[in-house]
Parts: sequence; C-alpha cells; structure tokens
Amino acid sequence: MQQVMDRLAQQIAFLAEADKLKGILRRTPLIDDSRQENSAEHSWHLLLVAIVLREYADPALDLYRVLEMATVHDLVEIDAGDTFAYDTAGIETKAEREQAAADRIFSLLPSDQRDRFRLLWEEFEAHRTPEACFANAIDRFQPLLQNAHSGGGSWRTHDLNRAQVIKRMAPIETAMPGVWPAVVKVVDTFCATGVIREV
Amino acid sequence: MQQVMDRLAQQIAFLAEADKLKGILRRTPLIDDSRQENSAEHSWHLLLVAIVLREYADPALDLYRVLEMATVHDLVEIDAGDTFAYDTAGIETKAEREQAAADRIFSLLPSDQRDRFRLLWEEFEAHRTPEACFANAIDRFQPLLQNAHSGGGSWRTHDLNRAQVIKRMAPIETAMPGVWPAVVKVVDTFCATGVIREV
Repeated sequence: MQQVMDRLAQQIAFLAEADKLKGILRRTPLIDDSRQENSAEHSWHLLLVAIVLREYADPALDLYRVLEMATVHDLVEIDAGDTFAYDTAGIETKAEREQAAADRIFSLLPSDQRDRFRLLWEEFEAHRTPEACFANAIDRFQPLLQNAHSGGGSWRTHDLNRAQVIKRMAPIETAMPGVWPAVVKVVDTFCATGVIREV
Repeated sequence: MQQVMDRLAQQIAFLAEADKLKGILRRTPLIDDSRQENSAEHSWHLLLVAIVLREYADPALDLYRVLEMATVHDLVEIDAGDTFAYDTAGIETKAEREQAAADRIFSLLPSDQRDRFRLLWEEFEAHRTPEACFANAIDRFQPLLQNAHSGGGSWRTHDLNRAQVIKRMAPIETAMPGVWPAVVKVVDTFCATGVIREV
C-alpha cells in the first residue's frame, strides 16, 4: 500500500507541476486578439486539430500516439519557455534548455512513466516517425489557423517574408498534402495585403 | 477538388470557432492562484491526467476514445458557458442549453464528423460506458488537484460541506478505486482546516 501511495504521490506532484504550462505565453494571439495564447490551451487545440484533420494524414499512423505526443510535447516549456519559431538566437540554445527541462520535469514521474514521456517528447522533436511528422504538422497548422483568423496574428508583429513562413509550414506539405494548397492560399493572401513581405 | 476544399473549409471553420473555448472561465483557479482556469487549458490537463492515471482504471477501456472524449467534452460551453458544479439553479437549465450548443457547434463540421463528435459528447454526458466513467472521473479529479494545491481553490470561495464534495467526487471511487483513499484524505484535510464544512 505504501508503494502504491508513493507512486500516486509522484504522479500527483507531476500533474500539479504541469499546471504551470498554463502560464507560458506564446507569440500567437487568440483569434479575438484579446490576449496571447498559452501553451496549455495551444496543446488542447492541437489535439482537436489532430482528431479533425486525421483523414489528410498517413492512414497507417497511430493517432493514439499522436494524441499522447501532442499532450506532452510542450511540457519542457515550463522551464525552457516558448522559443519563438523565428527567433534565431533563441533557437541556438533551445535544445540545451529543453533537455535540462525534460530531465527535471519528467523525473517527477515514476521511472517507467518518466522514460515513456521522455521518449514521446524525443520522438516529437526528431520529426522522423509518421506520428511525429503529423504532430509537428498540426503544431504548425494551429498557429496558421489563429493568424489567418485574426488578421495576421504573430505575422503582423514580426517582420517576415514569404519564404520564411513557407519554410516554417513545410511539415504540413509532407504530412497532410491535401491541406497544403489551403495553407499556400492563406500565406499568399497575407502577402497580398503586405502583412507578410514577398521577399 | 471543390468537394475536398468545401469539406476542409468546414473543418477549418469549426477549428477556428473552437478557439473561443479559451475564453470560457471556470470557477477553479490555477494552482498559483493568479487567475481562473479556462475550459481549453482544463481540457488539456484532463488528457494529461488520463494518460498518467490510466493504470488505476478498468484495464479493458479504450484510452484513445477517452482522449477524444476529453478533447471535445467542453466545446458546448462556448455557447452554454461553464455551469459551476454546485450551482443548483444553473444545473436545471444546463442540459437544454448544452443541447442547443451542441446542435450549433458540431454542425459546423461535415455531417460524418458532426455525428461522431455529437455521439462522443453524449457518451461523456451519459456516464455509462467504462470510457465515459473514466473521463468523468478525471473531470472531477483535475479540479480536486487544483484545489488541493492552491489552499482550497474553488472550495474556499463557496460554502460547501463534506457530503457535497464527496458526492461530487464519487465517480472517482467507481472508475479509479485505487485513487479514492487519496481523494478522501484531501477532502478531510480541508475539512480539518475549515475550508470545507463538516456538515
């Protein structure tokens, strides 16, 4: 009984620590432009995107693992913060900061779950399996959705050109080719209005 | 091609509408007590609880369906608002308000997905299948976790007695009997400090 209670106590400590993800702000505003989105609600939105757009992805992929991966993929930001996708200086130190965060945060769990969550997160970061490719594609698609419906969102406040945005969105082309024409159309619309520079 | 684009346009309209769940506030504060939690970040936290505490639930249940159910379970609140668990007047009109919300919100989707999401939500509300029982149990456990770690949270600001809280938490006893002693211990701790009344 003591062992069961110790294990549960570790799991509860981890679940309480995870609450802090609700305080990590991203650059993307909500669609109503009232405030910046946080990484916890972003993660929930990813899950919904995954379920709704699953038909455009590889039919053989395991959507259950995608949902698990999307749930845990941003937990390292509790320590490492959200690194803006176009912040080249921040990206240089991102891997190191996030490895240290993963060491600390996943270690709150019992060792079997620590190892499983760590592997899920590493799989997401490595972009190699069909599940990781789809999870990364939806992680690009969701902010595009927010930006497209809020007059440009984080594109408006950062000086970006078409090639930068298309490169950032490229995982969508690989993982959901049927969705790609709609993505290019959105980018071109915001190029036409000058929110994204042509070159 | 036009049909594919129309279907995708409906899916995108639904995913953009879903963003509004980030603006629906619950009574439960974040653990750092900085603000109230919203229903989108709450939903994400449920998924994490489900994945971490799965071992305490019926081994035969389909966790994938639980994750889908937890992702969609609060979408009706976009129109119907969050009804506080102990608000007896609000609960009288809750079902009607939420049915109307489900009609409108799920109808943004293509009809096959509209029907699937509606069934998932109805399954959650009916508390009958093992998946729905577990999803409801984690939907009770997550605010208990928040309250336990924030000095009482929503218990502090509402005049509740032990029997009311225990009744509200009862789905945890059924779906995760191994977690129940820890739940009772938390409730008793907050009874001892006077946050929850004994009678």
